[in-house]
Amino acid sequence: MTRPLTIALDGMGGDIGPDVVVPAALNVLATTTTPLKLILVGQQTILAAKLAALKAADHPAISIRHASQTVAMNEPPAQALRLKKDSSMRVAIDLVKQGQADACVSAGNTGALMATARFVLKTLPGIDRPAICTTLPSIHGHTHVLDLGANVDSKAEHLLQFAVMGSVLATAVDNIDAPRVALLNIGEEDIKGNEQVKQAALLLAASGLNYTGFVEGDGIFLSDVDVVVCDGFVGNVALKTIEGVAKLIRHYMMLEFKRNLLTRLAGLVALPVLRVFKRKIDPRRYNGASLLGLQGVVIKSHGSADAVAFANAIKIALLEAEQAIPQRIKHHLAALHPERQAL
Amino acid sequence: MTRPLTIALDGMGGDIGPDVVVPAALNVLATTTTPLKLILVGQQTILAAKLAALKAADHPAISIRHASQTVAMNEPPAQALRLKKDSSMRVAIDLVKQGQADACVSAGNTGALMATARFVLKTLPGIDRPAICTTLPSIHGHTHVLDLGANVDSKAEHLLQFAVMGSVLATAVDNIDAPRVALLNIGEEDIKGNEQVKQAALLLAASGLNYTGFVEGDGIFLSDVDVVVCDGFVGNVALKTIEGVAKLIRHYMMLEFKRNLLTRLAGLVALPVLRVFKRKIDPRRYNGASLLGLQGVVIKSHGSADAVAFANAIKIALLEAEQAIPQRIKHHLAALHPERQAL
Repeated sequence: MTRPLTIALDGMGGDIGPDVVVPAALNVLATTTTPLKLILVGQQTILAAKLAALKAADHPAISIRHASQTVAMNEPPAQALRLKKDSSMRVAIDLVKQGQADACVSAGNTGALMATARFVLKTLPGIDRPAICTTLPSIHGHTHVLDLGANVDSKAEHLLQFAVMGSVLATAVDNIDAPRVALLNIGEEDIKGNEQVKQAALLLAASGLNYTGFVEGDGIFLSDVDVVVCDGFVGNVALKTIEGVAKLIRHYMMLEFKRNLLTRLAGLVALPVLRVFKRKIDPRRYNGASLLGLQGVVIKSHGSADAVAFANAIKIALLEAEQAIPQRIKHHLAALHPERQAL
Repeated sequence: MTRPLTIALDGMGGDIGPDVVVPAALNVLATTTTPLKLILVGQQTILAAKLAALKAADHPAISIRHASQTVAMNEPPAQALRLKKDSSMRVAIDLVKQGQADACVSAGNTGALMATARFVLKTLPGIDRPAICTTLPSIHGHTHVLDLGANVDSKAEHLLQFAVMGSVLATAVDNIDAPRVALLNIGEEDIKGNEQVKQAALLLAASGLNYTGFVEGDGIFLSDVDVVVCDGFVGNVALKTIEGVAKLIRHYMMLEFKRNLLTRLAGLVALPVLRVFKRKIDPRRYNGASLLGLQGVVIKSHGSADAVAFANAIKIALLEAEQAIPQRIKHHLAALHPERQAL
């Protein structure tokens, strides 16, 4: 019998904290067939009360690990790292380091999570900088995009590392032999990208990855590629831009349907269809970004995630732990840079 | 009596050429009250035939200026500049240089248009690099965003120049005294942007512009600012990403409404509302990007623009010519950098 996988949940992180994390944990346990144990990390009394309120005080697959501190959403990462050694975020990561958990999930502040995870777990050999990777819906299914904000001013070599990590992730979670990897670029004919992208293209072409060339911003959604690689500044702007467009479109559509009685009636008739449509591009379905390149699985949930969204992040953590993503990345990098492994 | 403004139109540029440009020209003349003359630049016989077909062979406000060459959409800018001295694009820009036109519009390839405009018209004193600026819809109305791809690896000083140009444009076309200018940045707490953005923030704070700080990608649509400034690589990725999201959303929505007879009926009922909504965020309404920083008004239309969209680009050219945008930018820069003007 295989040992059940164990995932540590930062029970206090995010804008909402335990009111989201505890129901999400129960939701995942109720809907997952994989043997699974969850550790809720945070204020013992609060988490126990929340479990009791949900009639799950004695759930056999849930345990609580007390942590006395909480990292604030706007807390500087350096401060969190130095002063919050017993925070729910830190202890959840510590559990991964100590082998007591196979992965951890936090909706806490991204900077602190990245800094703490990097400090505690360390990067994999051959990885200079961890990257944030998420899945975005596309016309052909979905696309893994990285980096989404962990790194700015990335060098070509970093983009290559991101490409390796994204490719390994796509292979493991989508069961694709040779994921198609593209570099995010711009289409101006006289420029064809900045220096880092031009150099990265050369590295990728020689990498043995299934590098398919450049895509522009719309290619994230319209191109038939599996992984899109970019600098974290560019990726973060793109990600936030997507959120902004989606909100703008929603805003104007609601405005039109609320214009008068007739449009309200039309809205009522169209509502079931619009709901199905909305579910399809529901950002909650895509909640859960991977901090790739670390010696351990760390998943970042959106700070404002609800229980449905947080449950999705837990499922991603489970999948990455099952698939041993860090070990796979390490293995792939060793093949790419045999000289580095000797160091 | 004021002399009517004259706009030169590259009649052969874009994916469609005269079939778009000629009807767009007639549309603008039919709907604009400002005294206006249009010069169609390109193959005399083709343009004359097109005018005749639209029963406008002798339109008093339209003249044709023959140009024997056409710049291809994928033609390298350097080649267009060297070998296409009698292209419709080049001649339209020459007319601005010679004072025979107050502005020009082209749907031709952006790289060639930028390179040719820069070579022929030159940049304004105090401007190192022209920038591409467009208007995007926002919850509060609209936002001017630049640079959208003319420059990559922009330095802080260039971002400041973009900010001045965007601010002048917003003042002139939106009639705002002190447009709120924001820098596009990312929100990671530990990083707070790359080096260029950090330095640009200092320059902007000391510039006398109404600098309001950073916005993230969603701020383009949701923040109450007038101008958003960014490097051209970042801006181009954001712009193309927006196009991609919009197409993805449209794709999924159509899919849902076409699912079965019931959803088709719901779609029919909702159609008029969705049409109004679509018009509101219709990219054609926002067609026409300004090449700012040149000694003349040059407007770039989307290559695949239809007549409605191209007409919008002509109207932007008219507005910028009326408002003497290049002179205003020059004036503003002189106040910002008095030492440069002495050179």
